[in-house]
Amino acid sequence: MNAPATIDRDLKADFPGMFTPEGEPWHYLDTAATAQKPRAVIDAMARALGEDYATVHRGVYSRSAQMTLGYETARRRIAEFLGGSEDEIVFTRGATEAINLVANAWGRANLKAGDRILLSQLEHHSNIVPWQMLAEAVGAEIDVCPLTEDHRIDLDAAEAMLTPKHKLVALCHVSNVLGSVLDAPRAAELAHGVGAKLLLDGCQSAPHMTVDVNALNCDFYVFSAHKLYGPTGIGALWTRGDILADMPPWEGGGAMIDRVTFEKTTYAPAPQRFEAGTPAITEAIAFAAAADYVSEIGMDEIHAREAKLVAKLRRELTAMNDVRVFGPEDSAGIVSFAIGDIHPHDLGTILDEANVAIRAGHHCAQPLMDYLGVPATARASFGLYSTEADVDALLAGIQRTRKIFGQT
Amino acid sequence: MNAPATIDRDLKADFPGMFTPEGEPWHYLDTAATAQKPRAVIDAMARALGEDYATVHRGVYSRSAQMTLGYETARRRIAEFLGGSEDEIVFTRGATEAINLVANAWGRANLKAGDRILLSQLEHHSNIVPWQMLAEAVGAEIDVCPLTEDHRIDLDAAEAMLTPKHKLVALCHVSNVLGSVLDAPRAAELAHGVGAKLLLDGCQSAPHMTVDVNALNCDFYVFSAHKLYGPTGIGALWTRGDILADMPPWEGGGAMIDRVTFEKTTYAPAPQRFEAGTPAITEAIAFAAAADYVSEIGMDEIHAREAKLVAKLRRELTAMNDVRVFGPEDSAGIVSFAIGDIHPHDLGTILDEANVAIRAGHHCAQPLMDYLGVPATARASFGLYSTEADVDALLAGIQRTRKIFGQT
Repeated sequence: MNAPATIDRDLKADFPGMFTPEGEPWHYLDTAATAQKPRAVIDAMARALGEDYATVHRGVYSRSAQMTLGYETARRRIAEFLGGSEDEIVFTRGATEAINLVANAWGRANLKAGDRILLSQLEHHSNIVPWQMLAEAVGAEIDVCPLTEDHRIDLDAAEAMLTPKHKLVALCHVSNVLGSVLDAPRAAELAHGVGAKLLLDGCQSAPHMTVDVNALNCDFYVFSAHKLYGPTGIGALWTRGDILADMPPWEGGGAMIDRVTFEKTTYAPAPQRFEAGTPAITEAIAFAAAADYVSEIGMDEIHAREAKLVAKLRRELTAMNDVRVFGPEDSAGIVSFAIGDIHPHDLGTILDEANVAIRAGHHCAQPLMDYLGVPATARASFGLYSTEADVDALLAGIQRTRKIFGQT
Repeated sequence: MNAPATIDRDLKADFPGMFTPEGEPWHYLDTAATAQKPRAVIDAMARALGEDYATVHRGVYSRSAQMTLGYETARRRIAEFLGGSEDEIVFTRGATEAINLVANAWGRANLKAGDRILLSQLEHHSNIVPWQMLAEAVGAEIDVCPLTEDHRIDLDAAEAMLTPKHKLVALCHVSNVLGSVLDAPRAAELAHGVGAKLLLDGCQSAPHMTVDVNALNCDFYVFSAHKLYGPTGIGALWTRGDILADMPPWEGGGAMIDRVTFEKTTYAPAPQRFEAGTPAITEAIAFAAAADYVSEIGMDEIHAREAKLVAKLRRELTAMNDVRVFGPEDSAGIVSFAIGDIHPHDLGTILDEANVAIRAGHHCAQPLMDYLGVPATARASFGLYSTEADVDALLAGIQRTRKIFGQT
């Protein structure tokens, strides 16, 4: 069997956002915050807003029928991308809204006082706050799974913590700060062993690796299009069909109903029941274009490219004096670090002058910052367009910053 | 004082969606469902997704600071468009989500068992179902204001119905089926007279007339960008500042928090508290471009253009045998009608062959259909790009349909 062919063309050229206003390459290392968009996605959006534009589901004219086909084809495309079925995909505003939907629709119907939810110490706020709100509303309790020494979710600890009171385990598939990859099938086995469901926050796994919801054996998987080289304003919730079929509606409005009267309103079947109002039509179409784009390159190829860059960056950082590199060696496209006493914001600002963009901050993961004992980290995150030249530019910028701060 | 100058150029030329694939003008009369987008909006979207793209609020690099400025400028622009203040605007997925936000955040905090909500017989499902869900959750009751003979919300009846038990009056500013315009200042006076708040569903008023939330004297105003020539996936909630400041959060996640710990999470001030997760960044920027575009033409000018077309269409329809024209004479850009026994879907399908697009159906207003005694209506709705030629094409198509069905 041959290895898949590497796409050798300069992928940066596909992304109008990967250049500075002066036309220089931009060393964009903040893809975990949001990915740049390939021309194919921008063109799909422009076409959908332009010559193809019409509403969906309601028009009796042909262009509206075409647009409905485009929208539902996008749903099928996103389902395929995850290895799921099209009637298991709900389009949401993003991963955050998807988690809020599960918390409000599934959570309120299935959790009661005394029930427990297991999260982990490294979760993004979007996978903490909705559960805190749910817990407060129904009287449930939250448990927090600790991390291993190399900053993975400690599933041995999870195993010891889980009880039949646990109705949900909600974990980050790939940490947005550390890049640590969860052993999802084992997490599923542990959750299912006590009768709990497993929700995976897939924001950082969908862009970095092949995802198959059946192999992961999860019950809910959420992600955002904008982190997968797609548009803002849309994301998806995948839920196992039998769970989705039983979920009561959350938001009310047009398109999610069967029949409305002031006496009694009945609802449409899933997934329509969860998509109230005119949907993000053009965003869904551009989202599918993004899935097409990354699939053409191949998720395994993307993962392999990024792994090389992670290894190089971690190796070079580790060789420097007074640098802490967080997370495990095999992180998925994301490297967080701290350099002596230099505040990550200062580093970020100085790097910006050299056209290197990293993120500095708590990365919407304050409990993890507390755990790591830092107020913030510097984070470099890679995308399919990242190159060794980007890593070299970052390293040069770090050396320059260390000189400025007298740390050599 | 001179009358405002009329924009004489062919506005259709600004809209790539207003042509058939063969380059013929498309007689698009479904703007109340969704408006076509001017080139200025499509270009703003493409630029934001391309050379300008970055995340907001979090980056330490300059392009992210620029994007944050663009996003917050869009918020200010939308506030200006409504005569409100920028800290009173929450970006939502659309009007439907905005109503759900009010129902869940304001409603659950302010309504209790025995309280009452006044709606009207002509509301869109999006302004019915969220209140039914809220009423069921808190034990409140819903009252339904009837219509006048010419199909306006009967505010005399409302006055007689309102009691101090009423905490909310939620009404359509302009009916999406009939085009009837609410006397909003009087509705506000009546609501406020019993201590209730007034929510206006502005989906069909924002695109058809000058809106000033202070003159309307409402407490909540919601609308969708895609009906105002802007993108899908975004809309806005305007709420009076003191009300918004007191509203508890609804969706949890990143960007809406102050500080997250597993022990206690605190929230950001409004409006950020209501925008969990990465927002619809590029949609907000394109939404502002849409507001700029319509403002350049002038909402009064748009209203006057559409009023002429409404008058012509109503006059011609009324002159036909066996045609019912619904709604008042001075409807805002929308004309619903029924022709003898011809099902509106059949009419819509035949019109489509002549490149005329209308909507046929219940228009997400089934209680109004029940009231009118029809399962569906045919609806022609105008936009700033509509012309007499569009009305003529519709009328010719109607005559052709009548011939096919032997109704002359």
